[in-house]
Amino acid sequence: MSRNLMLMMRSLETGKQSMASVLARYRMTLIERTKNHLGYPYNLDFEYGALAQLQHFSINNLGDPFIESNYGVHSREFEVGVLDWFARLWELEKNEYWGYITNCGTEGNLHGILVGREVHPDGILYASRDSHYSVFKAARMYRMECEKVDTLVSGEIDCENFKAKLLLHREKPAIINVNIGTTVKGAVDDLDLVIQTLEETGFSHDRFYIHCDGALFGLMMPFVKRAPKVTFKKPIGSVSVSGHKFVGCPMPCGVQITRLEHINALSRNVEYLASRDATIMGSRNGHAPIFLWYTLNKKGYRGFQKEVQKCLRNAHYLKDRLRDAGIGAMLNELSSTVVLERPHDEEFIRKWQLACQGNIAHVVVMPNVTVEKIDKFLNELIAERATWYSDDGKNQSPCVASDIGKENCLCSLHK
Amino acid sequence: MSRNLMLMMRSLETGKQSMASVLARYRMTLIERTKNHLGYPYNLDFEYGALAQLQHFSINNLGDPFIESNYGVHSREFEVGVLDWFARLWELEKNEYWGYITNCGTEGNLHGILVGREVHPDGILYASRDSHYSVFKAARMYRMECEKVDTLVSGEIDCENFKAKLLLHREKPAIINVNIGTTVKGAVDDLDLVIQTLEETGFSHDRFYIHCDGALFGLMMPFVKRAPKVTFKKPIGSVSVSGHKFVGCPMPCGVQITRLEHINALSRNVEYLASRDATIMGSRNGHAPIFLWYTLNKKGYRGFQKEVQKCLRNAHYLKDRLRDAGIGAMLNELSSTVVLERPHDEEFIRKWQLACQGNIAHVVVMPNVTVEKIDKFLNELIAERATWYSDDGKNQSPCVASDIGKENCLCSLHK
Repeated sequence: MSRNLMLMMRSLETGKQSMASVLARYRMTLIERTKNHLGYPYNLDFEYGALAQLQHFSINNLGDPFIESNYGVHSREFEVGVLDWFARLWELEKNEYWGYITNCGTEGNLHGILVGREVHPDGILYASRDSHYSVFKAARMYRMECEKVDTLVSGEIDCENFKAKLLLHREKPAIINVNIGTTVKGAVDDLDLVIQTLEETGFSHDRFYIHCDGALFGLMMPFVKRAPKVTFKKPIGSVSVSGHKFVGCPMPCGVQITRLEHINALSRNVEYLASRDATIMGSRNGHAPIFLWYTLNKKGYRGFQKEVQKCLRNAHYLKDRLRDAGIGAMLNELSSTVVLERPHDEEFIRKWQLACQGNIAHVVVMPNVTVEKIDKFLNELIAERATWYSDDGKNQSPCVASDIGKENCLCSLHK
Repeated sequence: MSRNLMLMMRSLETGKQSMASVLARYRMTLIERTKNHLGYPYNLDFEYGALAQLQHFSINNLGDPFIESNYGVHSREFEVGVLDWFARLWELEKNEYWGYITNCGTEGNLHGILVGREVHPDGILYASRDSHYSVFKAARMYRMECEKVDTLVSGEIDCENFKAKLLLHREKPAIINVNIGTTVKGAVDDLDLVIQTLEETGFSHDRFYIHCDGALFGLMMPFVKRAPKVTFKKPIGSVSVSGHKFVGCPMPCGVQITRLEHINALSRNVEYLASRDATIMGSRNGHAPIFLWYTLNKKGYRGFQKEVQKCLRNAHYLKDRLRDAGIGAMLNELSSTVVLERPHDEEFIRKWQLACQGNIAHVVVMPNVTVEKIDKFLNELIAERATWYSDDGKNQSPCVASDIGKENCLCSLHK
């Protein structure tokens, strides 16, 4: 945004006549930025015109979704409808689950880990290095001991290292964050192997709590053939997923599902409330559940399945074309996150809004990322790259073998 | 909402053809419920038609408002504009403050208290019994020692009791939650007296941290003549205020302002966001700052002042008319929250969406609560009361002397 527009915004009350023009210009910026976006797992392709009429209301789902409060302008029925849908997806019976619509993936992780800590007050939190930063923030907020576990090159949790760490703290219960799609590499931790590792090291089911951070992939995996299942039939405690990612929503939101028995334990201690206080936030956005309800209803299981397949297809196309062009790239099985070398030019990164870490960047192929958009990105990248790197070996593309594996790197040493 | 509508909502995917009719019926419910609402401090009177065009965009202010992230579809400029406005209101220089737009009052309290704990890791949290429940939730989440301080009948913190509690824990720093308007009685804690009490018991400024929970009144007080000032010129650490309360907003949100020096101690860099992690939530609703910016710009200081005066005037009118009708009621100076005896009939409470505690209920007079609405409420209450209570003394209205003081009670004993 231009410095000029920024100054206008900051000078509140000095330019009332220009509010409309500020908004009109802002809208143009949003259109432009939405068009070029590739780096974050947000489905920017949605149409909620039918819900515009609801913007006139202050919709607030105060407190617990399952307990009516006195504030009447809420959307609890939509919220419970959405929660039922997800509980069914992850195979937890209606009378055995509890959940709520959160403000974002972070709130889901904060809640899941808090429930884990209340179930096991002296438990140690285990999470792989590639876990979302909110997991480590939770450990700090909640004053929990935390063990960072190594990852494989793919980004998955290294269960050998996990085992070694568990053996160091045998006497204390374990609270484990399992990634159903890591933020950077889109790697899916092997839930079955995590459980097997716990069992093999002598942790009975009542001595561990597993929170599954399914921010993006929690909603995609169920529609991928051959994908290992996230289900409450396995000994897990909670699953969270973002609503603004695969579903698509104007503002961040998420879904949190846990076992009712845990929530009863958590809220028993709260004596200062007439209603029970089991959510992290008190006032909650009542519009978000309606957006989610609308899309779930409109697309249905089959609609999501088709979109997931399209994303995976397009992700493979991108990865293949990158490698054809001599650019190192990795695509985890079950994932639509294509990891590639970090582009040399910051301007290029900003234009395509790529999230970067060290030598790598990624493109998350969401339903709004079409083949046309991919082609445009690729053509630009290939053209720019020719100006960044020279054939004489002076300026070379970075080696990304340590990030994505030798077999995926195409630097001068590994190609 | 009818059981029928509820069932339809729960049976996702079985009634696609009826989505439009579900929404139309839901809209009617919202209109009805908005009309009769009195109990919560939400200004339901807003008009954001000019912003409807922005609902097509997934606006997300990831991470820190002052640090550009790679995700381009954000509203940081609006957010910083709003923050600047509030920093000026509470007298903290631009280069000395940090803040962000939160999801609700609870997030503001969670953040303020977390900053306090990071500044004083072994500090004890002091909060009056009438503090919002999120304050005690924070203590539990953060594993902090917490002392509940008594309140006066008005709902204000009892500084005699505060002093006694401070003296018990002289060796540890103090983190204090000061209420700028309590939830139930709208009582404003005496900030100056709190500071004086700390000083008198030997707490130097570097051994305490004050968070001001200004959920509703943080924004009203600056416009009330003779009100004690909330300002960073006093030794306070943070102030939070809700955005969906006095300002009015379709979804909950809030403003958090703190001193930059504290945040530098708290935050960690998050590389893949190209930002630092100093907020509680990661992804953040980018629409909320635009709603706030729009209203601040449209109404300005003078507009707010007028609205505050109208609310206080109408609150006095309601309190006087209640007492004229022989109904016990209390209105704290500086407040627009009228406390009255809890109506006998649950149906009546639900209709007017009154928040209740024990024998008392309250009406929060917001800009959308007109004299006409107050009259309608009063007339209904007086008519219903005649059927609840009889003159023969068999069924009597409850005594509320212990809740709001003998002088405000009009039960058979105290009138």
